[in-house]
Amino acid sequence: MKTLNTAIIGYHTTKFGELWERSLFHLAQEAIEEAIKNAGLEKEQIDAVFFGNMMAGIIENNVHATAKIAELLEMNLPVFRTEAACASGGMAFELAATYLKANPGKTALVVGAEKMTDVSVQDVTQALSAAASGEEQNVGLTFPGLYGILAQQYLQTYNYTEEHLAHVSVKNHYHGTFNEKAQFRREITVEQVMKSTYVASPLKMLDCSPITDGAAAVVLTSNEAYIKNKPAAYVHAVVSATDTISLKHRKRLTGLDATRIAAAKAFEQAGIGPDSIRIAELHDCFSIAELLAMEDIGFWNEGEAGARIAEGATRLDKKGPLVVNTSGGLKASGHPVGATGIKQLGEVYLQVTGQAGKRQVENATFGLAQNVGGSGGTAVVTILGTDHA
Amino acid sequence: MKTLNTAIIGYHTTKFGELWERSLFHLAQEAIEEAIKNAGLEKEQIDAVFFGNMMAGIIENNVHATAKIAELLEMNLPVFRTEAACASGGMAFELAATYLKANPGKTALVVGAEKMTDVSVQDVTQALSAAASGEEQNVGLTFPGLYGILAQQYLQTYNYTEEHLAHVSVKNHYHGTFNEKAQFRREITVEQVMKSTYVASPLKMLDCSPITDGAAAVVLTSNEAYIKNKPAAYVHAVVSATDTISLKHRKRLTGLDATRIAAAKAFEQAGIGPDSIRIAELHDCFSIAELLAMEDIGFWNEGEAGARIAEGATRLDKKGPLVVNTSGGLKASGHPVGATGIKQLGEVYLQVTGQAGKRQVENATFGLAQNVGGSGGTAVVTILGTDHA
Repeated sequence: MKTLNTAIIGYHTTKFGELWERSLFHLAQEAIEEAIKNAGLEKEQIDAVFFGNMMAGIIENNVHATAKIAELLEMNLPVFRTEAACASGGMAFELAATYLKANPGKTALVVGAEKMTDVSVQDVTQALSAAASGEEQNVGLTFPGLYGILAQQYLQTYNYTEEHLAHVSVKNHYHGTFNEKAQFRREITVEQVMKSTYVASPLKMLDCSPITDGAAAVVLTSNEAYIKNKPAAYVHAVVSATDTISLKHRKRLTGLDATRIAAAKAFEQAGIGPDSIRIAELHDCFSIAELLAMEDIGFWNEGEAGARIAEGATRLDKKGPLVVNTSGGLKASGHPVGATGIKQLGEVYLQVTGQAGKRQVENATFGLAQNVGGSGGTAVVTILGTDHA
Repeated sequence: MKTLNTAIIGYHTTKFGELWERSLFHLAQEAIEEAIKNAGLEKEQIDAVFFGNMMAGIIENNVHATAKIAELLEMNLPVFRTEAACASGGMAFELAATYLKANPGKTALVVGAEKMTDVSVQDVTQALSAAASGEEQNVGLTFPGLYGILAQQYLQTYNYTEEHLAHVSVKNHYHGTFNEKAQFRREITVEQVMKSTYVASPLKMLDCSPITDGAAAVVLTSNEAYIKNKPAAYVHAVVSATDTISLKHRKRLTGLDATRIAAAKAFEQAGIGPDSIRIAELHDCFSIAELLAMEDIGFWNEGEAGARIAEGATRLDKKGPLVVNTSGGLKASGHPVGATGIKQLGEVYLQVTGQAGKRQVENATFGLAQNVGGSGGTAVVTILGTDHA
């Protein structure tokens, strides 16, 4: 199967940032309404909604979003909420694509949203740590700590330095300057990253994605009449895989097997290889994560990422074969966790349909998104493309 | 379409009750392992897992169960967590059936689990209230209060008394005596219900389902080779619908429109009517809920339920055309919220395949399960049957 005959035909993301005046469902509502409008549809043409959110239960004692979304839409349609920590958005999209494969001709709205800045940094850090195992939480490991362990392992194994990590953030901040929805829109330098405070060695503040509010939605359809004459990004593959929740049970710490397995299956489904991808949105929750993803997906060989990122290989202005995180990634665009997976897919949709404006990558026929939950316990890899045959 | 060619071929539920010595994932693990064994399969024959849970995030800062389940199974397979308040189990099952429709020949494990007794009654009441709207929570409405409003409306509209409600609990406690996994296994009388303390008028303690720990799992497959020569309950329909999360936005309060819509579509899909159903597991979180469900599904006419329940129409010993909640329902069997929807389906599976022992209903060719989230913001209706043509 080269394609699922299912395409994204509309997208909207709210501004990402510290949006103190807006609630979770205000944000979700904007994303939902504007994505439907962007697709040129009416809400009555939506058959089902898939909603990705991680932490509203913990932060604001708010679950049962299925009914809240029905209330917003004033419709009685099926609504499904998924949660896979920071991969909640990607997983919602995977289930929506599955729904459309089972129900040809139908249309789904996929929305992700997260409201993180209404509580203290301590409380949101605690809520994020809910994605780690109980044992990891009990010894005080937070996510910078978990990714710090992965970063140490990578740097030591391949003899890289912290400067190599810094190039990820520098590139993504540069890309963020082109994205008006991004949380941070200013360039930073390797020196600034190196001088920023340690959060969990070797990761410093500017290696870490921020705490963010935001929502994003895409309209996904297998209705040929809706796709016709519209910019459309076909789903060539969407595959998830899992791994142990605890780092201590992993087979290796220099990469994420969930990404590796999901990517290999996705390329097999799509019938293409990493070489065909021109644009990728990768889950750079921490700088190290983008380097691991480049190798796990097969864009670069094992141990190669540190050297290649320092060359600026995946920067927009390099005009190389692959540009990574044109949205600014999680680092500059922001990381409202439930929304991130959908924003990634929206960015790939904009790129493959030629709507990415100042950050447009030329000849972006195929694009890839990789969304990760926790320290790699879940990964979803999606391949989108303009052709559908 | 008369059938999805997908069948339940294995089931296990843990004991339901106050299981202080067991954790959420201990319970889930027992359900998973024993359901796979009951289906006569090995874990490697499972292609995907669907997990329903409502409140582990709130109660124990525990999300990302996708990875935890992968760790338990020592596999990297896709795992999906769904949440729709107390309909989380039913929704997991619906998505699993959709997955199998999209991927013929595959096999899914659907597991629901909830651990509710490790925190105070106040804390679990608060966590349950997360399924209500923010506005309802802010005015102090808890779930007995919300269903108390529905009960008042029903009793007043049709001139019934609190004794009519009491018959629901009396019947379900009677059925619970036949279910060795039930939380409560003793009969109660109308007098005992009437003398029990008011929780939220007109609902008294013995109108309310208890706080429960438990897990349940079914193996669902579209692989004909796995189904052959095994007791199998085919999925004839599984449909969800939504309604407003807040009671104040509902069109009526004498029933749940989400159930009504989902049931009508389910009967249409299955090509049968309510008359064909011999056994139903309905979501009696409070006594009133079973009466509303009987009318919303179309088993009884509007306003008829109070009179019919008092006649004992749906008791096992009545040997009438329809028996309801042979498991004991949520009231006697217990209500570990994420597990409830799966236990309901498991009970219907046992009944239609003739494995229900002392509580077996004769000629139970078709059975129905109705799983509700919140005060009716979500409903999932499933029809199972022995034939598949």
